[in-house]
Amino acid sequence: MFKSLGPSTSAFPTPAWVIVTYDQNERANAMTAAWGGIVNSSPPSVAVAVQPSRYTYDNILAKREFTVCIPSEEYAKETDYFGIESGRETDKIAAAGLTAERAEKVNAPYIKEFPMHLECKLTDRMNLGTHFVLIGQIVDVKADEAILDHKDSIEIQKLKPMVYSPTDRSYYKVGDEIGKAFSIGKEIKDKNQKE
Amino acid sequence: MFKSLGPSTSAFPTPAWVIVTYDQNERANAMTAAWGGIVNSSPPSVAVAVQPSRYTYDNILAKREFTVCIPSEEYAKETDYFGIESGRETDKIAAAGLTAERAEKVNAPYIKEFPMHLECKLTDRMNLGTHFVLIGQIVDVKADEAILDHKDSIEIQKLKPMVYSPTDRSYYKVGDEIGKAFSIGKEIKDKNQKE
Repeated sequence: MFKSLGPSTSAFPTPAWVIVTYDQNERANAMTAAWGGIVNSSPPSVAVAVQPSRYTYDNILAKREFTVCIPSEEYAKETDYFGIESGRETDKIAAAGLTAERAEKVNAPYIKEFPMHLECKLTDRMNLGTHFVLIGQIVDVKADEAILDHKDSIEIQKLKPMVYSPTDRSYYKVGDEIGKAFSIGKEIKDKNQKE
Repeated sequence: MFKSLGPSTSAFPTPAWVIVTYDQNERANAMTAAWGGIVNSSPPSVAVAVQPSRYTYDNILAKREFTVCIPSEEYAKETDYFGIESGRETDKIAAAGLTAERAEKVNAPYIKEFPMHLECKLTDRMNLGTHFVLIGQIVDVKADEAILDHKDSIEIQKLKPMVYSPTDRSYYKVGDEIGKAFSIGKEIKDKNQKE
């Protein structure tokens, strides 16, 4: 039996990402974001939704560059902290005991302790009401060598990204592999073609 | 040591969703989507990225309504199948042994066997290159009573949504809870305010 729960942002899974920017004084700032996702394959692009009242919004509009840093589960506390404090008066990255470094290809910092980050250039934005969706072209992906396999491909089970659940407002681990995409569905396709 | 991997859509976690639409003959069609996410809180809105060559794209543009159905992990094969077959000549939902029913508040079907779906109305779109990002206002969330807690809130561990990993192109389970958002980070905030 399906129950109507009304309109809400109840979608699963959503990510637990940290958007990192420089302000006008080149001070690094970090903001947690669960509203966003990949939105284009070529050029590779990511969408992040940011409220215009946020310090991060001003920074992205001014610099037009940012990073999306993906924390591993061991940084859950720091990730959560970046969502509950404003960077206008506080150096949040230092307060969390983490390190901001300048990214290679964009004028934005990244958090050194997090195992990977996407270097992004703002290409578009759209006002959707409470949030602006900001489209970032991913000009490079940087990953800690420790999370790469022998082909330099990121292994999700070494990365240990977090899933955010919007109903109970909690962070979850990524669990076991279920199966290979573009593969496990072939059984149905093959069966259907034979009939 | 960080390694440059070049530009790519390597982000984690991404969702494994199924977009369900009616075509011009009111035949239901389903397409798997990992490119998307929540992008606005009020009105609640979801972004899904769809290539304009897709049958689903034509359907959404014509009907301006669709559902985002969230499969549980037990439907991994069916979900994968929806990503490797086109609906132009095949009734994919029937071929997968699943059931399409008309949604309550939008002129689009949903998959009855999947534990939840978002009823969406197209409000905006943006051409990003290979994909259009389509913004859907979520007019209702429907959930199977079996995945609700006693307050009618969706429990992620009953829903069992899948995570898609774009590097090894595989589906993963959601694992254990790590901690409460807007809560576990307070320790850092409090410590910082005392200093």
